[in-house]
Amino acid sequence: MNNLETFKKRFAKHVKDLQNQITAAMQEIDGDLKLREDSWTRKDFVGNPGGGGITKAFTGGVFENAGVNTSEVFGKIDPEFAARLQGKSDELWATGISLILHPVNPKIPTVHANFRMIQQGAKHWFGGGMDLTPFFPIEEDFIYFHQVLKEACDPYDCYEWMKKECDQYFVNHHRDGEMRGIGGIFYDHQNSGNLEEDFEKYVNISNHFIKSYFPIVKKRLSEKWTADDEQFQLWRRGRYVEFNLLHDRGTLFGLKTKGRVDSILISLPARCRFEYGFQAPAGSPYQKMMEYYWPQDWINK
Amino acid sequence: MNNLETFKKRFAKHVKDLQNQITAAMQEIDGDLKLREDSWTRKDFVGNPGGGGITKAFTGGVFENAGVNTSEVFGKIDPEFAARLQGKSDELWATGISLILHPVNPKIPTVHANFRMIQQGAKHWFGGGMDLTPFFPIEEDFIYFHQVLKEACDPYDCYEWMKKECDQYFVNHHRDGEMRGIGGIFYDHQNSGNLEEDFEKYVNISNHFIKSYFPIVKKRLSEKWTADDEQFQLWRRGRYVEFNLLHDRGTLFGLKTKGRVDSILISLPARCRFEYGFQAPAGSPYQKMMEYYWPQDWINK
Repeated sequence: MNNLETFKKRFAKHVKDLQNQITAAMQEIDGDLKLREDSWTRKDFVGNPGGGGITKAFTGGVFENAGVNTSEVFGKIDPEFAARLQGKSDELWATGISLILHPVNPKIPTVHANFRMIQQGAKHWFGGGMDLTPFFPIEEDFIYFHQVLKEACDPYDCYEWMKKECDQYFVNHHRDGEMRGIGGIFYDHQNSGNLEEDFEKYVNISNHFIKSYFPIVKKRLSEKWTADDEQFQLWRRGRYVEFNLLHDRGTLFGLKTKGRVDSILISLPARCRFEYGFQAPAGSPYQKMMEYYWPQDWINK
Repeated sequence: MNNLETFKKRFAKHVKDLQNQITAAMQEIDGDLKLREDSWTRKDFVGNPGGGGITKAFTGGVFENAGVNTSEVFGKIDPEFAARLQGKSDELWATGISLILHPVNPKIPTVHANFRMIQQGAKHWFGGGMDLTPFFPIEEDFIYFHQVLKEACDPYDCYEWMKKECDQYFVNHHRDGEMRGIGGIFYDHQNSGNLEEDFEKYVNISNHFIKSYFPIVKKRLSEKWTADDEQFQLWRRGRYVEFNLLHDRGTLFGLKTKGRVDSILISLPARCRFEYGFQAPAGSPYQKMMEYYWPQDWINK
């Protein structure tokens, strides 16, 4: 087995390990958590076997709905779609973990993360990121999240640009540039030429996910919320749906590569709402929260 | 004023008249209906005045949320987007009515209609349609809806192809071809060369909307529903959101031509839900309903 094949195997194992660790962290917090696990296989674009994945779908008392999915897919992809990707070739291999947790309590932010390794023809690269979508203006939690990401990135001096990429990615462009949340880090097409170093870096960054999020959940777990808090949360979840279906490249990638639809759209919240012309009332915490959905410096607050 | 300009004016007036008639029909049925009316103006792609519209946003006791919008927009559009439209030119004029009514009661179907006249450079055409999205298997209502559409189309012998276009348009392609509802009629790029005849035809078809839908609302108004009925309705509304944000050309057209975002996304339901791997229970009315979301002959049932 050549070097690339070895690291592909190791990354595929890493994302499965991470899937199990995150599941364990969720189970520790949520006593009512129900897990439905589905293993699936797919055919590729021309009908040959094309890999598959493990979908873990959760509903619970803390996490209203959540998905923690891994997959390893390979084979032929639609040539027209292939031409728009980095490697151009219609021969693809990809492994990754993609997760989204939608808590019941509006004081606990929704979180999303994705860590992937892709080979397309002669090219390979790493991509991923994690970002937070809060619904209540608890600034210390937002700063904490970004501090952990900075800590993850500091050995590689990459927080600044990855944070900027994230600010530019999770944007509802049809909403004048409003972000879906408060960002985090995002990176794609990463290949330094040193596979071993790259592997170590992106594994290490992904290993900071649990620390970045679960302490916030524990801290806010027993906080009460009002009906108004929930209405604002559901309305912002509507904006989350807008982003995921109108703009998210990950969702498009999944649907275009004939991924499993229910596993891709597991990212959508169990409940959400849409309201014509909704405005957060002046002086409300929601008006304050609206100011956070724009790029800002979380480290030097 | 040349002939085309005269008919443009007349069609713009027609859609506003229809907007008022539909509003009156809603008010007659729904005693708790609240109307918020917003007149808006826009700038075109290069910053010149570009027309505007009248958005009527409703919330009520029968209609949970609804939008009945008209607009008349003109000016320069993004050249890249222009090249993908029928007329190629980056000079556009368009007027139309677009409406969507989401009733509270799951026994009453959601309805959508759109009637428009467009001029792009040297070309002009009519487009539009109406389609029904029921949540409970009351076959007689579905047949009634299609019978009225056939009656509207019979003078022009166009029901068959317009019904087929509709079956092919309101489809969640990522869901193996499942439709969002039970269809109706749909047509685009219609120009026979005889402007006067075309005008008469598309005005006449649009004038059948009220008869196609409101008698169904009245008939089902006082029917009771269960929590399960509502859960199925909310879940199907989720599929409605998937279609509108992933596939609907009207939504894309609106966002690409710098339309008013809240007026475009008024089509989304106030509440909806998403559930991983949801299956209608065997033998339930919902399982029966699922069979209706595929093309079928409604006239010769």
